[in-house]
Amino acid sequence: MEVNEGFKTIGLIGRTGSELVVETLHQLVEFLDARGISIVIDEASSELLPGDSHQVGSRKMMGEICDLVVVVGGDGCLLGAARDFSRYKVPVLGVNRGRLGFLTDISPHDLEERMAEVLDGKYFKEKRFLLEAEVKRGLTVIGENAALNDVVFHSGSSVKMVDFELFVEGEFVYRQRSDGLIISTPTGSTAYSLSGGGPIMHPRLDAIVLVPMFPHTLSSRPLVIDGNSEIKIKVHDANECKPIMSCDGQGDMTVSPGDTINIRKRAHKLELLHPMQHDFYESCRSKLGWSEVL
Amino acid sequence: MEVNEGFKTIGLIGRTGSELVVETLHQLVEFLDARGISIVIDEASSELLPGDSHQVGSRKMMGEICDLVVVVGGDGCLLGAARDFSRYKVPVLGVNRGRLGFLTDISPHDLEERMAEVLDGKYFKEKRFLLEAEVKRGLTVIGENAALNDVVFHSGSSVKMVDFELFVEGEFVYRQRSDGLIISTPTGSTAYSLSGGGPIMHPRLDAIVLVPMFPHTLSSRPLVIDGNSEIKIKVHDANECKPIMSCDGQGDMTVSPGDTINIRKRAHKLELLHPMQHDFYESCRSKLGWSEVL
Amino acid sequence: MEVNEGFKTIGLIGRTGSELVVETLHQLVEFLDARGISIVIDEASSELLPGDSHQVGSRKMMGEICDLVVVVGGDGCLLGAARDFSRYKVPVLGVNRGRLGFLTDISPHDLEERMAEVLDGKYFKEKRFLLEAEVKRGLTVIGENAALNDVVFHSGSSVKMVDFELFVEGEFVYRQRSDGLIISTPTGSTAYSLSGGGPIMHPRLDAIVLVPMFPHTLSSRPLVIDGNSEIKIKVHDANECKPIMSCDGQGDMTVSPGDTINIRKRAHKLELLHPMQHDFYESCRSKLGWSEVL
Amino acid sequence: MEVNEGFKTIGLIGRTGSELVVETLHQLVEFLDARGISIVIDEASSELLPGDSHQVGSRKMMGEICDLVVVVGGDGCLLGAARDFSRYKVPVLGVNRGRLGFLTDISPHDLEERMAEVLDGKYFKEKRFLLEAEVKRGLTVIGENAALNDVVFHSGSSVKMVDFELFVEGEFVYRQRSDGLIISTPTGSTAYSLSGGGPIMHPRLDAIVLVPMFPHTLSSRPLVIDGNSEIKIKVHDANECKPIMSCDGQGDMTVSPGDTINIRKRAHKLELLHPMQHDFYESCRSKLGWSEVL
Repeated sequence: MEVNEGFKTIGLIGRTGSELVVETLHQLVEFLDARGISIVIDEASSELLPGDSHQVGSRKMMGEICDLVVVVGGDGCLLGAARDFSRYKVPVLGVNRGRLGFLTDISPHDLEERMAEVLDGKYFKEKRFLLEAEVKRGLTVIGENAALNDVVFHSGSSVKMVDFELFVEGEFVYRQRSDGLIISTPTGSTAYSLSGGGPIMHPRLDAIVLVPMFPHTLSSRPLVIDGNSEIKIKVHDANECKPIMSCDGQGDMTVSPGDTINIRKRAHKLELLHPMQHDFYESCRSKLGWSEVL
Repeated sequence: MEVNEGFKTIGLIGRTGSELVVETLHQLVEFLDARGISIVIDEASSELLPGDSHQVGSRKMMGEICDLVVVVGGDGCLLGAARDFSRYKVPVLGVNRGRLGFLTDISPHDLEERMAEVLDGKYFKEKRFLLEAEVKRGLTVIGENAALNDVVFHSGSSVKMVDFELFVEGEFVYRQRSDGLIISTPTGSTAYSLSGGGPIMHPRLDAIVLVPMFPHTLSSRPLVIDGNSEIKIKVHDANECKPIMSCDGQGDMTVSPGDTINIRKRAHKLELLHPMQHDFYESCRSKLGWSEVL
Repeated sequence: MEVNEGFKTIGLIGRTGSELVVETLHQLVEFLDARGISIVIDEASSELLPGDSHQVGSRKMMGEICDLVVVVGGDGCLLGAARDFSRYKVPVLGVNRGRLGFLTDISPHDLEERMAEVLDGKYFKEKRFLLEAEVKRGLTVIGENAALNDVVFHSGSSVKMVDFELFVEGEFVYRQRSDGLIISTPTGSTAYSLSGGGPIMHPRLDAIVLVPMFPHTLSSRPLVIDGNSEIKIKVHDANECKPIMSCDGQGDMTVSPGDTINIRKRAHKLELLHPMQHDFYESCRSKLGWSEVL
Repeated sequence: MEVNEGFKTIGLIGRTGSELVVETLHQLVEFLDARGISIVIDEASSELLPGDSHQVGSRKMMGEICDLVVVVGGDGCLLGAARDFSRYKVPVLGVNRGRLGFLTDISPHDLEERMAEVLDGKYFKEKRFLLEAEVKRGLTVIGENAALNDVVFHSGSSVKMVDFELFVEGEFVYRQRSDGLIISTPTGSTAYSLSGGGPIMHPRLDAIVLVPMFPHTLSSRPLVIDGNSEIKIKVHDANECKPIMSCDGQGDMTVSPGDTINIRKRAHKLELLHPMQHDFYESCRSKLGWSEVL
């Protein structure tokens, strides 16, 4: 339990395209107004609340003035917020209006009760690290992005192979032909990496897992390395495909044969708030279908 | 061992872009000429042999007049020939100038010796079935293709999910969200399907395996069904991705939300010739890295 | 739907050690008595019904005079009945009082309704093949057994390896060091084989899957072969462990270094009755946790 | 590269039952004698060198007086030495006369060259952590052991299931029915754990992986946790099997239903010496069959 840090200004973000999200946003606005808390609505989300008179702000502005950002939606929505707000040290809290919800763990059904607890300082704060990835062409950085879950380097299309070399801490690991490689944080280990056969990693583990996608060599297996490792992918010149680097399944960036991708832990971590009863293993049991009674 | 069927006219196909293929084609032409066998060069391959005076023919023409087609290249090249020639009942023989070579099992190093044996009727003939796939929009068939290895239905890009329903013999199997589904013949079971966690199936097995790609549900597993099963994939209306159907990793066809894909065994099988010493398990041991000495 | 074959004499078997099984047996006896059907109680099960005055019989006698045998318990109990009754061509029907119940698919909750339908000829009959395994020392057969699910050859203890050679149809497949090998029928493919990474095989598929257990070589994968294949395991002389052959997880038989195990399809199949609404894929969805709604 | 610590007294251990080990031991004795280094021969190994006049000592004595212990054999032999010497802070060096040799990485072929370098201080020293496991019945510790690779808790026999609950850091993880659970260090991640589907973990990672063995629930996956975690396994009272706890595949200890197993990192680490050219990923490439050229 944390000492109340005083959440005086709270930013609100909602996933677009869902009536249920709008409903929950209204509920939140009403709840926070009643508590006298300043509200800043995310620009993109403000269209969900036409006629609302609260302040509207860019993510940059929200990052600078908010004490807390509440995201209403699914994990996808929270992933975007994580990339934006981790650099501002603004904690983020997720309300689940999506599918699974490993990250957005407040249920709309007890929203007010949980929010009241959070405002009273009854919450559990966790730091989750992000990965940052840069694509270099020769000596020039031609693009960069960040990911809370995973950086996925792939051939651009399933069934196409990409040929690349992997280095960790400057040491050559292997040359591989495969559909690609998933580089996942512990946070991402219950997402795409898991579908690809990667292990589940406890959120507090300081590690990164590298999961080959449809590897050509049967002996290729997930590889878990220290969280502070520098990872380098050298894309072979000979590739005929147009490889893609994707961060959290969003923001695709084209990579050319001959390019290099560098991936490392980002200096700034995401501060993720959970309600007190948060329990990682309980989430696994209920969300991954681990059954207690057999 | 087969009775000599008399290979009087032999078609030649070579993968483009490799000097080694050209070299092997020249070797073959010389060898067959010396034996007085008529040669037909595949149109696309004829540019590999500039100045060559043998007959050049379309695949259709080759299918109609050849008694045997020899493919010089890798498995990819043979897959294309398989789709073209299976309907003409022309047997196909592969000379390996590619990577792995499960299908192209004559080595260039003993090409003449093996070819002499084949012409003497010393070979082993196998029938391999193909899959045919049609995409339907409403009642209209908007595209069709065939595959010796596999039909892969996927979201068009790794890391994107496609939502679909699977039916086998009219029975509902499951609704799935995943990167896609691999539908593989026994021939294809040592190719992409294997990288995706599918089992190896003996070439003479009359079965099809369905392998989910990065399935969202951990309990989804490869499913082996009878080779004569009718498979239907219904692509959900709600999909935001632009799914692709790919046959043998070639010939991508775009599939739209709402479309249906029907997949079944093709009536005509590929007749694949092997040298006498062909041994499926030996191929597995040497090509998949099964070690005898541990 | 089958034409009513006239189930005039029905045998009853119950798993011992469960009050619920006893309750269901009583319910069955009452129901069948009311219908005027002759009942034969299995010897071992008769102690569950003290004071019952119906005929008690050995499995041999039951096999000879019964038209149907009803098994009350779990899949384990039905597996034993399958091995006993397949040679007598007596169909078997399972009432689920156990855990999973892929084979025992009548629920006790609608027992009378389903039984009435079965007696009226409204059922679905399936033939499931069994494997028979014999252990040979030199030329002498020193033991044999049968299995509806799987023959498991293993080192006798987890963490110990056994060194053996595998042959299929006389062809050498591989030499392997592992904890053992699972040889599974389609029926067994949803049981132990699945836990070991084997594929699900449709019950009507005529195939056998060989699943290596903790193989030393990473490239070893499940291998699916034709259901009529002769499988031979040669246990290496040099083994220090005391390997075991287990059929359906029951009836362990010690195998010595130097012994050979021969496994093939049994001539007699099990006739398994299902209620009309039986649906294999529905069983997979509900019992393996395949979710329809995601 | 380490500063020469002065290896004045060196202990020698050899795996019994191999002529090649004896040969290498003779070579080592001659080499060390020529250098004027004191030699202590392990008691059990001394029978390999009948007539040898060097000092013979217990492992305890060796631990107290040796500056280095050289193990000639396979990884199995080194695992035993690791458990014995980690508490004495004596570094261990392995000469490979066994199968794989992830730990014993000096080849007999350049033994003298490598040993000369080591004596000159040209080596690479790594600390590898061990796990210690205790079995408790009620409040009494009834047995304990240590492992460099893995603690395996299993049902005592393949194909039998054990029912247990897992706790990490006091938090309930799951109740599971399976053949057992592998608890592996990074060092063990290339051994049994890998055969069971566990990830490869870099030796310098401070983590433990828990790998379910043939789990009944398909969603059970390898779980990677912090290396300092306290792991507790509660064996269910209802188990009919006689579970076993095995450390590094050796030293089986019977566990009874109702017992508890506690596993944690051992305070003392093994100091493992490698020749300078040691490279973990190179070992993976050559020993696991990762191919560089495809």
